[in-house]
Amino acid sequence: MADAVPMVEIRRGRFAESVHRGHAVICDASGAIRAAWGDPEAVILPRSSCKMLQALPLVESGAAAGLGTEQLALACASHQGADMHVTRVAHWLSEIGLGERDLRCGAQVPDDRIERGRLRETLEAPCQLHNNCSGKHAGFLTLNRHLGGDSEYVEPDHPVQRAVRAAFEEMTGADSPGFGIDGCAAPNFATTMRGLAWAMARMADPAGLGEARGAAAERLVAAMIAHPLLVAGEGRACSELMAAAGGSVAVKTGAEGVFVAIWPEKGLGLALKIEDGTTRASECAVAALLTRLGAVKAGDPRVLRRMTPPIANRRGMVVGEIAPAPGLWEDGAAL
Amino acid sequence: MADAVPMVEIRRGRFAESVHRGHAVICDASGAIRAAWGDPEAVILPRSSCKMLQALPLVESGAAAGLGTEQLALACASHQGADMHVTRVAHWLSEIGLGERDLRCGAQVPDDRIERGRLRETLEAPCQLHNNCSGKHAGFLTLNRHLGGDSEYVEPDHPVQRAVRAAFEEMTGADSPGFGIDGCAAPNFATTMRGLAWAMARMADPAGLGEARGAAAERLVAAMIAHPLLVAGEGRACSELMAAAGGSVAVKTGAEGVFVAIWPEKGLGLALKIEDGTTRASECAVAALLTRLGAVKAGDPRVLRRMTPPIANRRGMVVGEIAPAPGLWEDGAAL
Repeated sequence: MADAVPMVEIRRGRFAESVHRGHAVICDASGAIRAAWGDPEAVILPRSSCKMLQALPLVESGAAAGLGTEQLALACASHQGADMHVTRVAHWLSEIGLGERDLRCGAQVPDDRIERGRLRETLEAPCQLHNNCSGKHAGFLTLNRHLGGDSEYVEPDHPVQRAVRAAFEEMTGADSPGFGIDGCAAPNFATTMRGLAWAMARMADPAGLGEARGAAAERLVAAMIAHPLLVAGEGRACSELMAAAGGSVAVKTGAEGVFVAIWPEKGLGLALKIEDGTTRASECAVAALLTRLGAVKAGDPRVLRRMTPPIANRRGMVVGEIAPAPGLWEDGAAL
Repeated sequence: MADAVPMVEIRRGRFAESVHRGHAVICDASGAIRAAWGDPEAVILPRSSCKMLQALPLVESGAAAGLGTEQLALACASHQGADMHVTRVAHWLSEIGLGERDLRCGAQVPDDRIERGRLRETLEAPCQLHNNCSGKHAGFLTLNRHLGGDSEYVEPDHPVQRAVRAAFEEMTGADSPGFGIDGCAAPNFATTMRGLAWAMARMADPAGLGEARGAAAERLVAAMIAHPLLVAGEGRACSELMAAAGGSVAVKTGAEGVFVAIWPEKGLGLALKIEDGTTRASECAVAALLTRLGAVKAGDPRVLRRMTPPIANRRGMVVGEIAPAPGLWEDGAAL
């Protein structure tokens, strides 16, 4: 078992004062590893990075027949609870005769500054619609209406989650060794780094998935790429990196330092996990890998502000930077 | 060179979904290592963990003759900009005929919720007094009045910083390999893990330091222990761990995952650095080490909420925990 490798350095003066290690795998749809750092067999919880896999049963079952691309993007989203997200999820629920009370994701203080400011001013409590996973849960509820399960759709043995697990295991190519309960109360199934990269490669190149799943994968990836702001939000890494990739790549983060990327035109999938779970490092590393892959242009400010953000002191002087570690970046040669 | 070792795990279900590695050294005043994890020769920036070393010239020069224990505690503090901190630093500066404008630390939004709320309500801008290092800088200005240097006391070749460097190198037992510029614009000198632990052991057992420095070390450690809330603030790890230790240990954190502890009755110093710089891990690890040392009681809630904090989902269900890694904790046997 290979160890996690240094991926990101926090530099101050001439010192690398902190180092983040991680694992990364780039796969094609056959499961062949095109590049790897750390341990491809490391077992991780993909957290929200696998929402497009969790949304496959919704689409391939036919339950999503009436849904548009915005709703599918929201089903794959970790949104920041801005008005554009909350309003659309509320409308979606009302379309299927349900409401906020039917969600089982819990309330969350939204990351969106405007909406958070509005709640603060009005002393209104955040609700389940603000939960970054409310679109995924609206998708679960839509699937549940189709399957006819009971209201507790986040229970691991509920028909919705059984369908999610089956799709997840088929896409990752192996039985899951188990699950943790995610922040939104749904089970989050474990897999290996290679399993997650392979699943993303299959999303990128769904020819071998059969008709229903292949079409579902294509619809979901196209929806993510069409609506980067619905997948995350203003100023967020996923949205900005997707915009920088100009519609060629779907990028999705997960809690605890996870990122995936789906690149249809190359048929490649990428999975990245920072061992210590830190966002500043996962954003830097995924920006570096997308640059090396040529999926985004070197020098694009939307990429650079993730890959080499300056560190300023409280007088505004730049005193350091976050940067890819030599082992991840080397000379930035193309992969 | 030994590698950093796993110190803290983020557990969800039966998975350790993230792992934080680090280095730690426990030293006595002779420089002998009593226990170590990772690499005692790893070079780190101690950041704010070394403020009591930076305050030595202030006290041993005689410049601090008129200062009380509250001011000395503030000189060693990373406070959260609460009213109790800001008011005292402002008063201290006025006593030496200076004011907020003479500080060179920069303004900082205070972490203290009440003060932050007050600024928000009044639309008042945070000022340099709110900077967590304003007490250290008041100490620098007090020393500077004694030394007669110019106003730019944070410049690395200023007499204040030359005195700080000399004290730092004598206490850590080696020339510093250089410095980074800290968040507060002052130079922060690098040392090894062992060097930092040794310096803390000398603070704990200053018999070999000579009269002036020995007395200065004793005054500073006593001041920190007497005023845990001035050293950090309500709800903060340093303050709560010092309270849990019942006046026997001084505990101080630094940015990017650093902690030190000074234990006079045992003559021991502790230095800890989480490689990736994450606070949740440094707080867990230092709480575990203080428990194993017997400096705090196992089961004290002020310690447990740092050592094994639960992780809840957004419905309030506990779905995981942060916990010391087996290599750090084992059976928690006394050190």
